[in-house]
Amino acid sequence: MDRANIVESSKSSAAGKPIRCRAAVARKAGEPLVMEEVIVAPPKFEEVRIKIICTSLCHSDVTYLKLKDPSACFPRILGHEAVGVVESVGEGVTGFREGDTVIPIFVPECEECRDCKSKKSNLCSKFAFKISPWLHDGTSRFTDLKGQTLYHFMFVSSFVEYTVVHVANVIKLDSPIPPNRACLLSCGVSTGVGSAWRSANVEEGSTVAIFGLGSIGLAVAEGARLCGAAKIIGIDLNPEKFEIAKAFGVTDFVDSRGCGDKRVSQIINEMTSGGADYCFECVGKAFLVEEAYACCRKGWGKTIVMGVDKPDSMLTFSSAEVLIQGKTIMGSVFGGLKPKSDIPILIKRYMDKELELDKFVTHEVSFEDINKAFDLLLEGKSLRCVIWMDK
Amino acid sequence: MDRANIVESSKSSAAGKPIRCRAAVARKAGEPLVMEEVIVAPPKFEEVRIKIICTSLCHSDVTYLKLKDPSACFPRILGHEAVGVVESVGEGVTGFREGDTVIPIFVPECEECRDCKSKKSNLCSKFAFKISPWLHDGTSRFTDLKGQTLYHFMFVSSFVEYTVVHVANVIKLDSPIPPNRACLLSCGVSTGVGSAWRSANVEEGSTVAIFGLGSIGLAVAEGARLCGAAKIIGIDLNPEKFEIAKAFGVTDFVDSRGCGDKRVSQIINEMTSGGADYCFECVGKAFLVEEAYACCRKGWGKTIVMGVDKPDSMLTFSSAEVLIQGKTIMGSVFGGLKPKSDIPILIKRYMDKELELDKFVTHEVSFEDINKAFDLLLEGKSLRCVIWMDK
Repeated sequence: MDRANIVESSKSSAAGKPIRCRAAVARKAGEPLVMEEVIVAPPKFEEVRIKIICTSLCHSDVTYLKLKDPSACFPRILGHEAVGVVESVGEGVTGFREGDTVIPIFVPECEECRDCKSKKSNLCSKFAFKISPWLHDGTSRFTDLKGQTLYHFMFVSSFVEYTVVHVANVIKLDSPIPPNRACLLSCGVSTGVGSAWRSANVEEGSTVAIFGLGSIGLAVAEGARLCGAAKIIGIDLNPEKFEIAKAFGVTDFVDSRGCGDKRVSQIINEMTSGGADYCFECVGKAFLVEEAYACCRKGWGKTIVMGVDKPDSMLTFSSAEVLIQGKTIMGSVFGGLKPKSDIPILIKRYMDKELELDKFVTHEVSFEDINKAFDLLLEGKSLRCVIWMDK
Repeated sequence: MDRANIVESSKSSAAGKPIRCRAAVARKAGEPLVMEEVIVAPPKFEEVRIKIICTSLCHSDVTYLKLKDPSACFPRILGHEAVGVVESVGEGVTGFREGDTVIPIFVPECEECRDCKSKKSNLCSKFAFKISPWLHDGTSRFTDLKGQTLYHFMFVSSFVEYTVVHVANVIKLDSPIPPNRACLLSCGVSTGVGSAWRSANVEEGSTVAIFGLGSIGLAVAEGARLCGAAKIIGIDLNPEKFEIAKAFGVTDFVDSRGCGDKRVSQIINEMTSGGADYCFECVGKAFLVEEAYACCRKGWGKTIVMGVDKPDSMLTFSSAEVLIQGKTIMGSVFGGLKPKSDIPILIKRYMDKELELDKFVTHEVSFEDINKAFDLLLEGKSLRCVIWMDK
């Protein structure tokens, strides 16, 4: 790299040149992010370089900061919920230009493959969804000032003033929605709302059970509320969450530590006279998926798997029960949403005052204070903390 | 029982009285049925007594004849695919009268409970589907000439000249469809066709993989063909079945013993460029459900569990794969069909020459020769053998 050619982040006209700017770098598993200057290469073929306006912290960022092996890789630029402005575009980019406000989305959508063209899938075949340390071409756009490569995260990496993202992972924002609301739609809130809306297709009047009242679980509740669910049961081992959950449409609560001799599934079965129509596992524990399945209604009940357990954990079901109970088990990535067509719908529903995003934002900090956002989430004090790059 | 009051089966006007008639009784596990005379009590509340016209042999009859423990019970009157005529009706019966031609169906449908009223389920709550040795009131209508109680089977018990069935398990036949075709719709063929049509909702142009080319698997193929599937892959360890399967719409074949180093799922994934849209497990082996799941397409693939494995067998899936692949696993009883509304549709489609039933009937025997029907099925020579009571 020709260092003389690097443009300071404050300067304009950096197109085609590397930019030097601030990043919060994950250098070691479990340790605070390190604020430092990094070099962001120009976008390559079909990529855009984005100036981040604000980003929010999602639990996956924490998970991958803590992770030791096998998918851990450091130094890495985490962050995957954001809003920004296109600073420059690479070759072959159509549909985006400098100055466009955009939302990067970790789920790729090439819009050309069989899966992207189908209404039934949100898992692009051209660019597979994975927790990759690279962009789609298998390389990084980030280096530190010593020339060491920094890894990407979920094709987004938003804990940096400028990032490079493939156009398959970007949607244009043509709405006056504030950036500290739009960024939530990059991952967590959309995942929860989408899982009720698109994956499960929750129907009016139905009964929903949500295992885990973290942000994802509450977003499932918000989605179920939007779909007209009549009863939304929240299950958590921390009863303090129940008060908060009411604001998200949760109507009934089960304290999983207060069930006595009964299993949670037994209590839900009793509360719902035979099981909930839709059960969502939002914690990431295999045994909770099995509990959720055990209390979804025979004949039509759906269990939606949303949490990430350890890579080697297994789900086990009785073969005979699966057969004769006629229930469904399904996985859901990003709530089954197709980013480029479904996120604009969610934005419109926010602007129409149907989808409630405001209540998810419990904290806002400046980029310098990004580690506070991690502390707040780890202490269970925040749902979404928005991190502003320029404030 | 007042023995003087028993009416011979050849006599008329038996209403309200026990009937003495012939039955093929399963007396010992794995042994041929014993032709003997039995006493059939009059129908009780909401029951009808049916004179069987013909019955066909399904694999479940063989399974329960062979079964030793724990659900085995002898002496028992097996048989659950049949057509007959109502001989008399019990108290509280509306909608059926003497002389009605009917099909008994092992899946109850009370038409009143939440499940029966829902379009989404075929699992009645009032009368649970189970392999019960009794009618719904927990008693039997059969005794042998020594006064010993004979157990019922699947609420039908058709290997007898007269049987008693609850009205929740009977549908009226208002069609000129021949009885040796209509009886197939009592269980196996409907289960297969329905699983493609109702449970999976196979779409035009889609790709289907069927594990096991017995009658159920072939009926799935027939259902997939009716739904307009473009590619129907049959998987079996007996390549002799492939020739027969062509007549049922199967377009491609995989000999599961001829896969070399590859797993069947790998071959299906290659044949379908990423997995079949719908995979049906029709053998009843947990490991085959896992194979089916492994080759159903990410994003929208559905694996439908149709086979009955041992009661304690478990299905195991990777938690991470279930999450990120967005596939669905579902069980299907009686193909997801609601007997009273869906069977008349299948009958109409047969009469309209769309649904092909004739090719399933490979043999016909008289009631005296019922054990030949078992031999033919066990030897893999028959798909459906119709047993005529009066021929």
